[in-house]
Amino acid sequence: MSTRLQGKVRIVGTGLIGTSIGLGLTKQGVLVSLEDSSPANERLAADYGAGSVASSKDAPDLVVVCVPPDVTARVVAKQLEAFPKAVVTDVASVKSQIVDELAASGSDLSRYVGSHPMAGRERGGAASGRADIFIGRPWVIAEHAEASQVAMKLVEELALDLGSSPIRMSPAEHDRAVALVSHVPQLISSLLAARLIGANGVELAGQGLRDTIRIAASDPKLWVQILGANASEVVSVLKDFQGDLTQVISALDDVSAAGSLSAIDQAISAGNRGVEQLPGKHGSKRTQLETFTIIIEDRPGQLAKLFTEINEIGVNAEDVKLEHNPGAQLGMLELSVVPTSAQKLQDELSARGWRFA
Amino acid sequence: MSTRLQGKVRIVGTGLIGTSIGLGLTKQGVLVSLEDSSPANERLAADYGAGSVASSKDAPDLVVVCVPPDVTARVVAKQLEAFPKAVVTDVASVKSQIVDELAASGSDLSRYVGSHPMAGRERGGAASGRADIFIGRPWVIAEHAEASQVAMKLVEELALDLGSSPIRMSPAEHDRAVALVSHVPQLISSLLAARLIGANGVELAGQGLRDTIRIAASDPKLWVQILGANASEVVSVLKDFQGDLTQVISALDDVSAAGSLSAIDQAISAGNRGVEQLPGKHGSKRTQLETFTIIIEDRPGQLAKLFTEINEIGVNAEDVKLEHNPGAQLGMLELSVVPTSAQKLQDELSARGWRFA
Repeated sequence: MSTRLQGKVRIVGTGLIGTSIGLGLTKQGVLVSLEDSSPANERLAADYGAGSVASSKDAPDLVVVCVPPDVTARVVAKQLEAFPKAVVTDVASVKSQIVDELAASGSDLSRYVGSHPMAGRERGGAASGRADIFIGRPWVIAEHAEASQVAMKLVEELALDLGSSPIRMSPAEHDRAVALVSHVPQLISSLLAARLIGANGVELAGQGLRDTIRIAASDPKLWVQILGANASEVVSVLKDFQGDLTQVISALDDVSAAGSLSAIDQAISAGNRGVEQLPGKHGSKRTQLETFTIIIEDRPGQLAKLFTEINEIGVNAEDVKLEHNPGAQLGMLELSVVPTSAQKLQDELSARGWRFA
Repeated sequence: MSTRLQGKVRIVGTGLIGTSIGLGLTKQGVLVSLEDSSPANERLAADYGAGSVASSKDAPDLVVVCVPPDVTARVVAKQLEAFPKAVVTDVASVKSQIVDELAASGSDLSRYVGSHPMAGRERGGAASGRADIFIGRPWVIAEHAEASQVAMKLVEELALDLGSSPIRMSPAEHDRAVALVSHVPQLISSLLAARLIGANGVELAGQGLRDTIRIAASDPKLWVQILGANASEVVSVLKDFQGDLTQVISALDDVSAAGSLSAIDQAISAGNRGVEQLPGKHGSKRTQLETFTIIIEDRPGQLAKLFTEINEIGVNAEDVKLEHNPGAQLGMLELSVVPTSAQKLQDELSARGWRFA
């Protein structure tokens, strides 16, 4: 597999995304140099294999700015100046503000194309970097009128080389879409989770609530920057949401009134249709694997025995997930394998006495 | 393992919960009879092994009513009349309304104790029934002043025999708690998902949105009944949520005003604290375990080898998570152990050549 990118790449900011980009490109033989405001971070990312520490002699063809959103425009402007022949992109989560700030500061916009890989992990930092986090994910290429075709092409090649699907959108279209699919869900999830503080009966919570508020564990510092930078788009979606919420509250406030139950039914039914808007389950990979649950007795050696037997049967475990249930005598291990192996594995494990949930 | 329940159990309503209870009890040798308004459903559950089809000669000691919420009180009343010596319970998601209706209809409340197993699955129906869905889950025993101790004890035995943890609460306490941890999250998730209808850029959605709106795929018919029956508690939580939402909207509406960014920071930070309220893996317990990541080479037998060695070292794996990384040469296995074992395990695994990420 040869890369589309031919020249040298400089990554500025070696957090999770910068390091992951470096790992992915280096693996494919692209020459990557790494720069970070923290020399220790810079070296850590280099040690991980994300590239070599930047030197003053570097002459990158493409600079990828992976710094926090609030300093992105400033760093992009600096890189455009420092490398007058290079194309510069960034990976920040909000796009309009950056291109507006660059235009205001008189930067050479022909060589700048913002972008946004729709990838990440719960944990940040170079040590969490992985070459594969972009595979199969959308990567927004934020096209604007002054960007040169060469610049557009180079940034798309970056996305393609990392396994992403580049999607062209204007910065405004991008910001509207992420307000809906990312920024508003974050806020709603946070507001919902906050209701649990000091409440009674939280021990009754099940998986539904856990899933709904999982992202409420996200970093406040990062989200203040993102939400602040995309405030008007976020407010617009939140106001629509608030209108719907008000309707549901008034239906529930007088639940015996004519039309109240049908208003609630419509709200839940609309939610059903909303879920259906999502493109095919993500980890398209997930749908390519078959998952089943094995009951594991809570005594030493059970996992060793299970994996030894799976190995003897000759099947590869692709995904494994064991949930710890405090106090329970049994564990449930979720195992995913390629569909062609699923039946065989279940049959042979059954024959060896394993039970399935 | 012998059961606590000694007598005969009749299950009325053989949907997911009724069938699962029947499967769990039958497996342990309890005599279960099954009744459903649909003879086909009744027979399906019996064929699955949930018990035998009810006959007019049955004399159950315990009747478990597992019918939709809106007919629960009526069916409970009928069963109390039909079996004048039996204890009757139900499993509906809202508890105050039922006991109120039974009191109004003059039923013998000494033999009735409502309950609510906090368990379920995305798919309903007898065919989705599983004996183990109650294991390790809370099961609310809705105590009320007129319930006899015998009745309370019998319903708790039911919960214990199925592997649940019985929790005594008044119907009102229960209804307030589930409004917060179940009913409001359902509505908020539905309202959020509904915003996707007809929107552009939904293809940018990631796992965060997916998790947040997963439960929005739930059955509207069931939820209209639940929300209608618990309207006042749900409205009370929704109004608090609405107040918080209004504050966030006004902060974002004028994001450059003094205090706006700190209001957003407080909302996201409160969400962090909210998530920490959850018991179990995402909450207290998570912090009691130490998690580290082991690098697994992508060749057969590696997991078997690892777990055999962990067993030899004498440490118990509490949580295990292996992520499938398509195309990657290495897998990352997240392993959680009690903190007192963490250092020992890492040292000994290192000595055996395992690498950590």
